[in-house]
Amino acid sequence: MPLLDDDRLFDAEPKARGVARALYAGVRNLPIVSPHGHTDPRWYAENQNFPDPARLLIVPDHYVFRMLFSQGVRLEELGVPTTDGAAVETDPRVIWRRFAENYYLFRGTPTRMWFDHTLSTLFGIDELLSPNNADAIYDRIADQLTRDEFRPRALFERFNIEVISTTDGALDDLKWHQMIRDSGWRGRVVPAYRPDAVVDPDFEGFSKNLDRLAEISGADTGTWQGYLDAHRQRRAFFKSFGATSSDHGHPSAETANLPPGEAAALFDHVRTEKADSRQRAQFRGQMLTEMAKMSVDDGLVLQIHPGAWRNHSPSMLARFGRDKGFDIPTRTDYVAALKPLLDAVGTNPDLTVILFTLDETVYSRELAPLAGVYPALRLGPPWWFHDSPEGMRRFREMATETAGFYNTVGFNDDTRAFPSIPARHDVARRVDCTFLARLVTEHRLGEDEAHEVAHDLAYGLAKRAYKL
Amino acid sequence: MPLLDDDRLFDAEPKARGVARALYAGVRNLPIVSPHGHTDPRWYAENQNFPDPARLLIVPDHYVFRMLFSQGVRLEELGVPTTDGAAVETDPRVIWRRFAENYYLFRGTPTRMWFDHTLSTLFGIDELLSPNNADAIYDRIADQLTRDEFRPRALFERFNIEVISTTDGALDDLKWHQMIRDSGWRGRVVPAYRPDAVVDPDFEGFSKNLDRLAEISGADTGTWQGYLDAHRQRRAFFKSFGATSSDHGHPSAETANLPPGEAAALFDHVRTEKADSRQRAQFRGQMLTEMAKMSVDDGLVLQIHPGAWRNHSPSMLARFGRDKGFDIPTRTDYVAALKPLLDAVGTNPDLTVILFTLDETVYSRELAPLAGVYPALRLGPPWWFHDSPEGMRRFREMATETAGFYNTVGFNDDTRAFPSIPARHDVARRVDCTFLARLVTEHRLGEDEAHEVAHDLAYGLAKRAYKL
Amino acid sequence: MPLLDDDRLFDAEPKARGVARALYAGVRNLPIVSPHGHTDPRWYAENQNFPDPARLLIVPDHYVFRMLFSQGVRLEELGVPTTDGAAVETDPRVIWRRFAENYYLFRGTPTRMWFDHTLSTLFGIDELLSPNNADAIYDRIADQLTRDEFRPRALFERFNIEVISTTDGALDDLKWHQMIRDSGWRGRVVPAYRPDAVVDPDFEGFSKNLDRLAEISGADTGTWQGYLDAHRQRRAFFKSFGATSSDHGHPSAETANLPPGEAAALFDHVRTEKADSRQRAQFRGQMLTEMAKMSVDDGLVLQIHPGAWRNHSPSMLARFGRDKGFDIPTRTDYVAALKPLLDAVGTNPDLTVILFTLDETVYSRELAPLAGVYPALRLGPPWWFHDSPEGMRRFREMATETAGFYNTVGFNDDTRAFPSIPARHDVARRVDCTFLARLVTEHRLGEDEAHEVAHDLAYGLAKRAYKL
Repeated sequence: MPLLDDDRLFDAEPKARGVARALYAGVRNLPIVSPHGHTDPRWYAENQNFPDPARLLIVPDHYVFRMLFSQGVRLEELGVPTTDGAAVETDPRVIWRRFAENYYLFRGTPTRMWFDHTLSTLFGIDELLSPNNADAIYDRIADQLTRDEFRPRALFERFNIEVISTTDGALDDLKWHQMIRDSGWRGRVVPAYRPDAVVDPDFEGFSKNLDRLAEISGADTGTWQGYLDAHRQRRAFFKSFGATSSDHGHPSAETANLPPGEAAALFDHVRTEKADSRQRAQFRGQMLTEMAKMSVDDGLVLQIHPGAWRNHSPSMLARFGRDKGFDIPTRTDYVAALKPLLDAVGTNPDLTVILFTLDETVYSRELAPLAGVYPALRLGPPWWFHDSPEGMRRFREMATETAGFYNTVGFNDDTRAFPSIPARHDVARRVDCTFLARLVTEHRLGEDEAHEVAHDLAYGLAKRAYKL
Repeated sequence: MPLLDDDRLFDAEPKARGVARALYAGVRNLPIVSPHGHTDPRWYAENQNFPDPARLLIVPDHYVFRMLFSQGVRLEELGVPTTDGAAVETDPRVIWRRFAENYYLFRGTPTRMWFDHTLSTLFGIDELLSPNNADAIYDRIADQLTRDEFRPRALFERFNIEVISTTDGALDDLKWHQMIRDSGWRGRVVPAYRPDAVVDPDFEGFSKNLDRLAEISGADTGTWQGYLDAHRQRRAFFKSFGATSSDHGHPSAETANLPPGEAAALFDHVRTEKADSRQRAQFRGQMLTEMAKMSVDDGLVLQIHPGAWRNHSPSMLARFGRDKGFDIPTRTDYVAALKPLLDAVGTNPDLTVILFTLDETVYSRELAPLAGVYPALRLGPPWWFHDSPEGMRRFREMATETAGFYNTVGFNDDTRAFPSIPARHDVARRVDCTFLARLVTEHRLGEDEAHEVAHDLAYGLAKRAYKL
Repeated sequence: MPLLDDDRLFDAEPKARGVARALYAGVRNLPIVSPHGHTDPRWYAENQNFPDPARLLIVPDHYVFRMLFSQGVRLEELGVPTTDGAAVETDPRVIWRRFAENYYLFRGTPTRMWFDHTLSTLFGIDELLSPNNADAIYDRIADQLTRDEFRPRALFERFNIEVISTTDGALDDLKWHQMIRDSGWRGRVVPAYRPDAVVDPDFEGFSKNLDRLAEISGADTGTWQGYLDAHRQRRAFFKSFGATSSDHGHPSAETANLPPGEAAALFDHVRTEKADSRQRAQFRGQMLTEMAKMSVDDGLVLQIHPGAWRNHSPSMLARFGRDKGFDIPTRTDYVAALKPLLDAVGTNPDLTVILFTLDETVYSRELAPLAGVYPALRLGPPWWFHDSPEGMRRFREMATETAGFYNTVGFNDDTRAFPSIPARHDVARRVDCTFLARLVTEHRLGEDEAHEVAHDLAYGLAKRAYKL
């Protein structure tokens, strides 16, 4: 078979496949709207060539190295840097060969689909990666990476990205965004406000982060009101660079809405590092509600990404640092957790709060019923481990009947793996068209309506929900 | 496409579709047995025409207005009455137009299927509702609603309803049921005993409700034994009107089985409003077991509908009252929760307890394993948010392998939306036939057996489980 | 239809069915590797004929009698022995007829598939069991059971079992295993080390079990170190009979990793029966970690089977004893529960811990993310209630995208129903081929690769994961 079949991901049944093809034909070439992700704005600012196949596609990709690690390959052998600078593999070709030897492990995974898509559409390779062709493929990619048309801005344009959002810490000076703006390049790259480091008392260096927040905002982060003002200023600063959203990665979806005096007192505890773990969690929850209230004022869309147990293995954290594949989903409650926020602002139709989850059981039980009635709520697409064909199908099957399509917000690629962006959007478009085709062939939706919905899922909803 | 295709909901694959068609042909015209629902007995008693399209199909339907509200339409604009009598939209045509403008929101939802079915089969309309045809369709429906053949009893007969159960508070005098009986009309409408208002200490006016219970029963509801006697009398009264079931809508499935002295002491606490929230929950749990014991004596089938967080938004409750789309499912445990009841009466094959859930994760993990061994237990059909094609499919896929078909009880329409009853039963029959057709085409069940099962799922099981 | 269709369980869609057939053709005749199960080693040791159809197929099978009991058949009527010796049905033909009358209850269940497969392939019966043919089928089976070719060893060979593991208590003398070895028969039957009775303080006779453990090991089980030594000796003894695994059936997946002094103190509490329920749970958790550490030394694969609420009905336990169909799954956490064990040994690629669950919600949320990164972890196949076509399909759909195929371990029949072993493996092979065929027809996997995976799922992974 060719590496990519034109009918991939469509149902095998001919009638359903025919409808899916027709729907997909209408959306496959739509521009990419990427309202949430983790690409590095420096790439677009400096527009330097990417270094080599391994450092582009393997070393930074936690989906890739976690699978290899799970089967006994050490991260050092894959060139993943250690926190103490202990030596790791530095030869990208050796790393690439190790990956090729183990590529069979990805059978049935989205990484496999994304990788094949990248090889085929970006690098013109139409063979399955294997130990036999690893060197030849490495050479072809390495050669292309040196060319101008493989620099970040050229790829951005080739990928037909209409707009992409990065995710940036509250303390970030957005200098790369400034540099992009100053460069005169027309690619639209906007930041998103991610204040975890100054909102989560458990974040490394929280107290110093607040000092730094005071410095750059000029507000007094020693007081509750000053601290809130500092957020308002930073949000305005981010907005001035085109930001339309904030993003919050909390361990749970807990929210709180304390009376101002209690909130101020809680802040004092947290600020002076006297808060216990319950108070620290409550503070995070309070800040979600504060952020929602600020969103009512400034219009930023609020994204909540809860439920990851970060850095589950302390020994791996110590040796390799954060984001090394050891973040594990946990059971996450929303109905009780979000109530304080919803009581405060949930019925406001001018607010948009986008909910994500790593716990698929909440799609039909909690998220769809909540988003199906609260005007402030929308459902984000399947996230992280669930950003996959089966995960997306389950999301549509479990959320649509209660929330409909129009309380969802299209697709997020949510990736730092820049070359995989077209592949990820393509998978989402195909899976949505396949789902819609089933509704059409089962006479649950007219084909003309399905075309409209497909367009909205691929393009319109993301633009409207994120105000892009 | 026509508004309703004859093959709707069947698998597209021709062989499976052929089997589904054949199975469905055997059950599509079976009478409707509706053993649990919320239609108003007054309709059948008075047999008045329904007022207008909006007040029949939109204003009272929380599935409809919650979706519109979620997208920014205010309930006032849809004519939903306020608790303080503040003005709301009163022009049914205006309400209807607002609905038509937003009808696309229901794509992929069961409301869409039910509504199309109603338009097509009840009112003879074969176009998709849209802003363009909203007025014309309004006029056609409004005109028909004035006719005799659209009065409740005529519709009851046209819908081929063999028997329907309403749901009636323990304090209800059943006067509409009496009036139906006295009228000589042959339609079979029976009540169900729903004692939440006199069982749940958190119910509005609980203490006064118990005073009222004393008045109408003549029993002394100031004592535990008198209170239980009052229930026995009311159950007998309901039975005299044909009731075969009781129904219980508790926040959780918690049950308790205290020694008589402790139960009496708990009742005293509850009766005098000294009980804390833990004791109030325990009392509700105790009463489920008491009701089960009474069922052993009087034969009423016990239905448990747990797990809804009622009136999640206090501001919406204050402004619009109960049942306005703000009931949200919560995680619900059964294995520990039901144990006291099951220890007491669970192995009694003469008792029937029908379990419902809003938490689909329990189908395969808890409910099917429990119902697959305890003779007193049966599984109710997918409920509320899950009464939908995908929800029904998941139920069969997750429950059947452990509980079989014969520990389930057929379909409940569970609706107050009278015109949607045929649509709902039709969806259930089609989905069940589709599931059975898959078993047949995958050679997991003989086609002759599948016909028997289809008949049981559409008709026989409901009659037998509910003793109708 | 014939009792068994050659295409059973394959998708009806012709292209997918064609691929599934081709994949299945490559694995249908592979030897059976049965790395975990509950057949009785005495059968292979003594090689006696099985008594009669009822005592072979009905009386010992909790899947069978729990379903009949759920529909009002008393266990006494099915010949299930009572703990006090009260009379039960003794006529196997009467039991068989009762089963035949109720055989329709199993429609849509795996028991139905296994039973039909056994009738057809083992006894040459090609009619659906019914009250009409019950006697004739009984006679045919009974007659065959008297023959030499239906003795356990002959069946073992006919079933093409390459190796089977029994499950044996830590105190077992393995005399039947010794007798098998001494007999010169070439069938490979190995034990597995199941120390629940000497690890779980809630086990009946725990303290006496530890005394007995001291006797047979010569170690002093009055001290923590002596107790651990006793385990090491018993594990070595089991290994000398070919054991490659231990197995642990705990109420939860809780693990602990206390400092040695605290562990010793906890043991003293447990040993002297002063431990409260929290301490008893912690001790079980500590022992999982101790077992994992021993596995690092001696290479035994560690299986964890958590989450069953055993003997949910006390009255049934009192009357009929354990394992009578009243074990019910419960919600089970892994991410927090396993952390102590994983912190201790989870990144060791030389250790193999195989995780099972009765809570399907953890497949995509917890188990696949954990096994997809920790090299010590592998996912066991769907277990018990979920060892069924729909259950297996859900497992592949929910686990593969994050864990891949190679962090799973093939199939376990996990049964004490010896005649059903070929049926169970056949169902697993068919369902896996159907899943792979979908990946192939949706162009997510090459057909050549699918053949390799099918072979691994049916044979290779079990051998490698269990070191058989």
